[in-house]
Amino acid sequence: MLLHEHRVHFHEVDAAGFVFFPHFWTWAHEAMEKLFEPLDGGYRALIVDRRVGLPAVHLEADFRVPLRYGDVARIEARVVRVGQRSLTLGYRVRRGADDVVAAELRHTVVSTDLGRAESCAMPDDVRRVAEAHLDRPSLLA
Amino acid sequence: MLLHEHRVHFHEVDAAGFVFFPHFWTWAHEAMEKLFEPLDGGYRALIVDRRVGLPAVHLEADFRVPLRYGDVARIEARVVRVGQRSLTLGYRVRRGADDVVAAELRHTVVSTDLGRAESCAMPDDVRRVAEAHLDRPSLLA
Amino acid sequence: MLLHEHRVHFHEVDAAGFVFFPHFWTWAHEAMEKLFEPLDGGYRALIVDRRVGLPAVHLEADFRVPLRYGDVARIEARVVRVGQRSLTLGYRVRRGADDVVAAELRHTVVSTDLGRAESCAMPDDVRRVAEAHLDRPSLLA
Amino acid sequence: MLLHEHRVHFHEVDAAGFVFFPHFWTWAHEAMEKLFEPLDGGYRALIVDRRVGLPAVHLEADFRVPLRYGDVARIEARVVRVGQRSLTLGYRVRRGADDVVAAELRHTVVSTDLGRAESCAMPDDVRRVAEAHLDRPSLLA
Repeated sequence: MLLHEHRVHFHEVDAAGFVFFPHFWTWAHEAMEKLFEPLDGGYRALIVDRRVGLPAVHLEADFRVPLRYGDVARIEARVVRVGQRSLTLGYRVRRGADDVVAAELRHTVVSTDLGRAESCAMPDDVRRVAEAHLDRPSLLA
Repeated sequence: MLLHEHRVHFHEVDAAGFVFFPHFWTWAHEAMEKLFEPLDGGYRALIVDRRVGLPAVHLEADFRVPLRYGDVARIEARVVRVGQRSLTLGYRVRRGADDVVAAELRHTVVSTDLGRAESCAMPDDVRRVAEAHLDRPSLLA
Repeated sequence: MLLHEHRVHFHEVDAAGFVFFPHFWTWAHEAMEKLFEPLDGGYRALIVDRRVGLPAVHLEADFRVPLRYGDVARIEARVVRVGQRSLTLGYRVRRGADDVVAAELRHTVVSTDLGRAESCAMPDDVRRVAEAHLDRPSLLA
Repeated sequence: MLLHEHRVHFHEVDAAGFVFFPHFWTWAHEAMEKLFEPLDGGYRALIVDRRVGLPAVHLEADFRVPLRYGDVARIEARVVRVGQRSLTLGYRVRRGADDVVAAELRHTVVSTDLGRAESCAMPDDVRRVAEAHLDRPSLLA
């Protein structure tokens, strides 16, 4: 499990006064980048130098309570499945002030050769990092 | 069915060169705003004057082909379910150049009293607009 | 002069209820992309195929009245100076409902070889398009 | 002087491969929010509870070297002028790896009654925090 904290910015709320929900996916992606930081050169080198990426192919999300400007989002990121070419991450987003679960997200990505825009075998080091965070299959239920 | 077109901007792609996937939700929300334009004062008045909103409670998405800078996203928006307090929208996103389906999204929102941050009965005019776009239950399958 | 219209989105306002000011620069960039659409393949081909870009080197802006969710921003884009390697664009942003000037922006960009990240001579076709929109030097005063 | 660090995200670069320049203003605003954290309840309470804001009225920026995905932006924020109703902040953005100055920004904001959308006298506590960071008038030259 990797913990990523994000304080809701002034500009991340919408005209209703709540966090605009696509930002939850941005934070999830930031948590995923951090999770893959142990790769040599981090996620950046995977993308920029090796031209292998992990684009999303499936998403699911449940939102329970809205977050507002100034709230801290405490994002618990886990890998819940590792396949041949794809893997699924699960994120539980808690409101920092009271630990209430604000959202749960599931994010399936596929190992992709960015030059050809085609799926490819998952690199061994990506698999190793993913497996080190493999956890909590109950999230898949 | 409501059609919303969006040309992928210079700044909507990421370091992998594809559209950063949370933007698909932003475009979906823009299509939803347009769908509710027939409300008196549009979606803006619902939010700002009446303080009723439609925050997301559940999301699902499948991505099939990536979009790139300059591509046109042709977003077909439908209402696929209208409940007592919630409704579900379905979006099919086609790439303009060849009509290929790039993504399909499902977006469940709940009628919410923004002042109290609690769900509320769906206003009659919101229900009427939603039912006018009710279509294609097969999307739910 | 090129006209670019943008309706302020639900998610472009901030916790104060006004448009978050960096978005004005995003809209200005969108107007610039549209201004260079006459290039063969548009601005997209310049960036992606020819790997020449126009990154900002200097910005100035004055904001007079705030814009809100639902307002239409009517952006008048002009080229106000064309140099050897750089050019300056001026944008006047009017509120659609009453034509009041909400903001004025000046945006100097430099012709850049994106592979080497170094300035380069401005391509002839870029210069021709810029000169076709050259207008209103009084904006520079 | 207040230091704000920001690691360039995967999604903050554009189709040219550099940070999309409006994001520098977003980071500057985040640094300003942090600078006003000593207010009772922070900048959030000023905006949300007291309904006083600091919208931008004038901006200037110079960009010297582009930032890329993975770079750390080290943002030095100072107050360079405090007036009756307005104040000016200066930001120097350095690239973390080599301390090179990537950008310099000047940001003038005006104390504003958000309910009336009109300028107002600067609250005493805002002035005190601003004056505590008053520094380096040479930036104004």
